Amino acid sequence: MKFTAEMIASMEKEARRRLINCLAGFKSANLIGTVSPDGIPNVAIFNSVIHLGADPALIGFIQRPASVERHTYENIKATGYYTINQVNKDIVKQAHQTSARYTREQSEFQHVGLTPYFMFNNPAPYVKESRLRVGCKFKGEIPIPYNDTILVVGEIMEIWSEQGIIQEDGFIDLVNAGAVAITGLDTYHPVNEGVRLRYAKPDLAPEEIEIKRW
Amino acid sequence: MKFTAEMIASMEKEARRRLINCLAGFKSANLIGTVSPDGIPNVAIFNSVIHLGADPALIGFIQRPASVERHTYENIKATGYYTINQVNKDIVKQAHQTSARYTREQSEFQHVGLTPYFMFNNPAPYVKESRLRVGCKFKGEIPIPYNDTILVVGEIMEIWSEQGIIQEDGFIDLVNAGAVAITGLDTYHPVNEGVRLRYAKPDLAPEEIEIKRW
Repeated sequence: MKFTAEMIASMEKEARRRLINCLAGFKSANLIGTVSPDGIPNVAIFNSVIHLGADPALIGFIQRPASVERHTYENIKATGYYTINQVNKDIVKQAHQTSARYTREQSEFQHVGLTPYFMFNNPAPYVKESRLRVGCKFKGEIPIPYNDTILVVGEIMEIWSEQGIIQEDGFIDLVNAGAVAITGLDTYHPVNEGVRLRYAKPDLAPEEIEIKRW
Repeated sequence: MKFTAEMIASMEKEARRRLINCLAGFKSANLIGTVSPDGIPNVAIFNSVIHLGADPALIGFIQRPASVERHTYENIKATGYYTINQVNKDIVKQAHQTSARYTREQSEFQHVGLTPYFMFNNPAPYVKESRLRVGCKFKGEIPIPYNDTILVVGEIMEIWSEQGIIQEDGFIDLVNAGAVAITGLDTYHPVNEGVRLRYAKPDLAPEEIEIKRW
């Protein structure tokens, strides 16, 4: 099947949005926790959190213009801090429900049934039900001029994980963390154990290396 | 387990790189096809391809500074075109092997065992073994000043898929496309069928909707 640019442009709006949203492949599922200047804890799902670099340790996400997720962005700009909490299989429905348009005065935590968890050195709430959580400090924002989205960049302040998820060599066992992958805007997939391959060199055939379990 | 910023900074370099690379969660697996100005087809794996917006239809990826993937970037800048090809379970080893440091004169297609596939309106090669392929036109690049990476932005020109992958409502059945998810830099996961949830509203409980199969 071929879809030309003209065919894509003439698609019904919701179908085109769904198609383009799915096109890059599987996405990460994260809950971003923030707090408003008047103390209301906010949590919202994002499927656009991405690795930006290891040294310095930076993580990014795409902020869409004028969306429901805007509370997250405004709280980050006002307070300078946020948390990124990996969604696991047990909290998929609660995580998805955070995308509903709650008002600024409503805490999604309370409405969807997730538990805010505060640590002393980050004013933003973590999600207690997540097994892998990252504390972030706002580093800066990069406007994407072609569609008025923003790449929000954060410095990694700290990482909290349950036992058995972060291994000695730094590998994170996302399967053991129960992490899910997202298609498009609404579909959440359990992920199977994978194959880990040796660092590739031109003169060596690909070879599996062991994924250690605790 | 808690890792503070100080603990992360003092980790052995490769372990830190691995840890931070895994932190955002599962990533997409795509092969980017390009052609050099002197006609050598190039293909390289990227785990950073992301959705940027549906209208206009834009897709992005992160280009790291001075990496092996640089051939891809240079070819895109020189020719203006590239292809994004979803990695499936059957070509994981070949896809990973494209990350080896082949020289500019070596075509990865030939060395790893993938087949370049040319369409008349895009000078860059598609990967024949992929079941979901996107033709892109270079739109622009956005420098990320904090670590000298670049967000490369492309316009979607056309989409090629096998039957049964793109559904009438625009949903892409990535599981049926055999698409895999990546942890970090080296681990490739098969993905299970997921649950698709209804558009969330504050006054409605989350509800599953059917994923149609062909």
